[in-house]
Amino acid sequence: MDRSGLLIILSSPSGAGKSTLARRLMEWDPTLRFSVSATTRKPRPGEVEGDHYYFREPGEFRAMVAAGNMLEHAEVFGNLYGTPREPVEEAMRAGRDTLFDVDWQGGQQIRASALGNHVISIFVLPPSLAELERRLISRGQDAPEVIAGRMQKSRDEISHWAEYDYVIVNEDIDQSAEALKTILTAERLRRARQTGLGPFVRGLMEEEGR
Amino acid sequence: MDRSGLLIILSSPSGAGKSTLARRLMEWDPTLRFSVSATTRKPRPGEVEGDHYYFREPGEFRAMVAAGNMLEHAEVFGNLYGTPREPVEEAMRAGRDTLFDVDWQGGQQIRASALGNHVISIFVLPPSLAELERRLISRGQDAPEVIAGRMQKSRDEISHWAEYDYVIVNEDIDQSAEALKTILTAERLRRARQTGLGPFVRGLMEEEGR
Repeated sequence: MDRSGLLIILSSPSGAGKSTLARRLMEWDPTLRFSVSATTRKPRPGEVEGDHYYFREPGEFRAMVAAGNMLEHAEVFGNLYGTPREPVEEAMRAGRDTLFDVDWQGGQQIRASALGNHVISIFVLPPSLAELERRLISRGQDAPEVIAGRMQKSRDEISHWAEYDYVIVNEDIDQSAEALKTILTAERLRRARQTGLGPFVRGLMEEEGR
Repeated sequence: MDRSGLLIILSSPSGAGKSTLARRLMEWDPTLRFSVSATTRKPRPGEVEGDHYYFREPGEFRAMVAAGNMLEHAEVFGNLYGTPREPVEEAMRAGRDTLFDVDWQGGQQIRASALGNHVISIFVLPPSLAELERRLISRGQDAPEVIAGRMQKSRDEISHWAEYDYVIVNEDIDQSAEALKTILTAERLRRARQTGLGPFVRGLMEEEGR
């Protein structure tokens, strides 16, 4: 059945397993489009234009915002980050879903945008804050004060859980990945998503005259 | 996670596979409660009180309607049929979902009832009207004029497809049963259904003080 694409917002505190879940979902359905952000910050070694980010000059970025070509944008540590609108709308028209790995602020802005009624939003909770801290420490990437800062940001992020359509408590990554696939499969079966149903039922009723 | 029970409305024209799908869903999740209707018609041989129907005298039935104890009711060929409210509310409080095998009129009444915001509704479409007629004929139960009457009723039922949350085109019964399970599993993951989430997140945040 034909349908228009969905905007899938996936949010969680850092370390709750969101990136792994996003990757699992992309592997499960290769037609999914992962939303790539635009940013004014300089590329780091190994970062690829259009793959990790769209790298833009500040003037160019601001012109896109002014022209309404950013679905959402925010300034973080002096750099601008945002979601270009055009690739999302193109995917929607082609019946492809776009996955957004964004925090609660990005989620709020996408929900408030013109495409807001095509959004489904999912929040991933850790089983406990202790487990979250354990995961952050076991990555071995960050100094204790950085981890303390991340934990504060996590509590801030978690405080927005009730703004989301679905909530998954990630106790087991396999079970959570299944839950995510289930949500997406069910949402695609919603009557309002299946744009081919109207013509299909009209065809069904016209059999009457045969 | 604790949650309050759902009211699952399953509708379709006769012969589209609804009864088989309902049975599959009940086998998959034995905690599901199948809603039993009350009726004023006399029991047929083999029909069991509380299993096939709650058999009630017309006066008793009307008293239940007057007292607001029927979620929905309708008169069909001189007999009254309705859904007693109490068993549904009892299941909801226990976190159990109730499955309703009702036509579009029953669906509309349950949606309009005080429990309407706990409803999810699913419509099952046949792949074609010719296939529907073939299935009705192959049952070998009905005379041609009865089948013609059923087909007319089917077209009337199908015309209400757009009132439902989800639509499944039943081309393959196994695939459709899977779709039905998927819808139910996803709906149970909705934030608003998981009544235990509030206390869980409060507990999560209180870890902060540890």
